[in-house]
Amino acid sequence: MDAMKNLVTAYSTREFLDRPIAEDTLKDMLRAARWCGSSRNSQPWNVIVIRDRATLRALAEIIPYGKHMASAPMGIAFAIEGAGRGQSLDAGRISQNVMLAANAHGVGTCISTIADDERDRQACALLGVPDGWSVRSFLSIGYPRPRTPEEAAAAKARPNRGRKPYAQIVSYERFGKPAP
Amino acid sequence: MDAMKNLVTAYSTREFLDRPIAEDTLKDMLRAARWCGSSRNSQPWNVIVIRDRATLRALAEIIPYGKHMASAPMGIAFAIEGAGRGQSLDAGRISQNVMLAANAHGVGTCISTIADDERDRQACALLGVPDGWSVRSFLSIGYPRPRTPEEAAAAKARPNRGRKPYAQIVSYERFGKPAP
Repeated sequence: MDAMKNLVTAYSTREFLDRPIAEDTLKDMLRAARWCGSSRNSQPWNVIVIRDRATLRALAEIIPYGKHMASAPMGIAFAIEGAGRGQSLDAGRISQNVMLAANAHGVGTCISTIADDERDRQACALLGVPDGWSVRSFLSIGYPRPRTPEEAAAAKARPNRGRKPYAQIVSYERFGKPAP
Repeated sequence: MDAMKNLVTAYSTREFLDRPIAEDTLKDMLRAARWCGSSRNSQPWNVIVIRDRATLRALAEIIPYGKHMASAPMGIAFAIEGAGRGQSLDAGRISQNVMLAANAHGVGTCISTIADDERDRQACALLGVPDGWSVRSFLSIGYPRPRTPEEAAAAKARPNRGRKPYAQIVSYERFGKPAP
């Protein structure tokens, strides 16, 4: 896939076919994870690949808005060492790189996150994540279930579907200043 | 550029040619920003494109490890609405998407960040960023200055250059469990 096309087409997928992810695709997702940049090249992460159905179901219970993980053929949990703002930014970078690698292979993903400390502890306990680490971002991963024409029409009509216009999200030199 | 190649070659660039960024490239960077996913599609961002030398120099003073911004032909400041962990993760996602769009066009970037609140306030004041927003992640952007053979050799010898081996950053089913 073309690099730019990949960057503007990585939508969320929440319903998946019952079909395992091709090994070459997983390999590329892990390659994208490994070569992702991070603050001072700290690479503060461990990428946990999950295919065990019981674990995926348990995570779907722990993660708010994570129900889609229960029926995904694969999941990834990003364990992150340290808990500062910088680590959250790095978690965003690696999530994005891995989602984009999946998208380049026609594989859909949906990211979900844990904000509160208690659920973080539950997820750490489930996955054996040690002290000093947290696990707050997750991907559900699979081939997208094709939509029926009715579903496609409903999705198109959803108000929250698109993106804000450029004038609302881009400024020049100072916040709110339009293009010269 | 091929999508996978793009994801594994986006290294940091800190020294730039004195050459403005092509308008089509900037357009693609902003397209990648706009179509980046975010938590519940909140798009909590404003992308401030900066070419004014005085502003770039002032930011280079405010941002720790941001000296490279002083001589970059262009900078971007990501203003983010809200200050939670989720917003930092979204800031990481949009930074990554914009860096990748630049890389796809042969343009180098270096990300730098602000952790402390006082510097955040200084950057907000400089850029006119309103209350309730913060500005903590930045890109220096430009065509990479070619390295001399000596510099290339020195870079190759730097201990912190590469990436951890897969065994250290990937687990299966549980933290630390190797591939089946």
